[in-house]
Amino acid sequence: MKEFLKPYPAVFPVPALLLTVYDEEKKRSNIITIAWAGNVCSEPPMVSVSVRPTRYSNQLIKKEMEFVLNIPTAEMIREVDICGTVSGNNADKFELTGLTPLAAQMVKGHWIKECPVNIEARVKQIINLGVHDLFLAEVLGVFVDAEYLDSSKRRPDYEKINALAYCPERYVVTGSVVGRYGFTIKED
Amino acid sequence: MKEFLKPYPAVFPVPALLLTVYDEEKKRSNIITIAWAGNVCSEPPMVSVSVRPTRYSNQLIKKEMEFVLNIPTAEMIREVDICGTVSGNNADKFELTGLTPLAAQMVKGHWIKECPVNIEARVKQIINLGVHDLFLAEVLGVFVDAEYLDSSKRRPDYEKINALAYCPERYVVTGSVVGRYGFTIKED
Repeated sequence: MKEFLKPYPAVFPVPALLLTVYDEEKKRSNIITIAWAGNVCSEPPMVSVSVRPTRYSNQLIKKEMEFVLNIPTAEMIREVDICGTVSGNNADKFELTGLTPLAAQMVKGHWIKECPVNIEARVKQIINLGVHDLFLAEVLGVFVDAEYLDSSKRRPDYEKINALAYCPERYVVTGSVVGRYGFTIKED
Repeated sequence: MKEFLKPYPAVFPVPALLLTVYDEEKKRSNIITIAWAGNVCSEPPMVSVSVRPTRYSNQLIKKEMEFVLNIPTAEMIREVDICGTVSGNNADKFELTGLTPLAAQMVKGHWIKECPVNIEARVKQIINLGVHDLFLAEVLGVFVDAEYLDSSKRRPDYEKINALAYCPERYVVTGSVVGRYGFTIKED
């Protein structure tokens, strides 16, 4: 028996990321927690993020047209929640959370040092969809803490990072790997 | 010490969904596993999916302009992997996996009965980004198994569903809730 729910954007789980963007006026980077983000193209490598025009960071992204997506570990849940509930118009979120800004390499602004993965991206297209703007951005570089690389040294170690995901109103952890892509083929 | 990795779409975790779309020629629905999907707008409620033009389902979506996003449980990992590695041009994936098609309510095509959540959507815009097409679609209805509703009866029970997420090449489970959105405010 399936119950009908009034239409809402119901995809889950979604990532729980910390987006940093430079704030020219305040001469520092702001942090905003983003759950509506993902990968959208492999060549050119592109990611997307959706942000309401009413959010402080929306205007910053439109001005700079560059940002960093920082992937936190599950241990950073408190900082993730703070950056999703406090406005950067009123607070320096690096100061508020104790997180450490590190100058980004290919974009203006800062990485979050404590996040094991930092993705630098440049906005290519902005699409207003209604109450959210969709930013489509090209990945310029991916930076990973050496201690969080997997044995190939070419990709993050997902079990070690134990990243957060988001199901509406809930943070969940993702460090429990239960299978590899293609395992049903290799069995044959 | 951060290591530079060649740019790639590095966001994780991402969802592991089963997209169903009607195949007019074969008179059945096809299933494709999708990890590059997410929520993009709350009003109108919209979701996005990225699919390569070379995938069989890409052409089906362009023809029907409607699809269903079905959210599997972690127990369905085998079916999820099969639907991501076999082409619908050669196989009836419902037959191959033993999953059960149920006629959708507001779009042509079928839900996957075994998935606790079925999201019906209609494509509003298609953007070619390079080797992927981005489909932006409005949510028409969300259907949830009564037994998988939470105590509010208005949202899925995420712990009970224990959905899969995807970190490149790895399936992970997400049933372990570690916090609620806003918990750092409520503490004050």
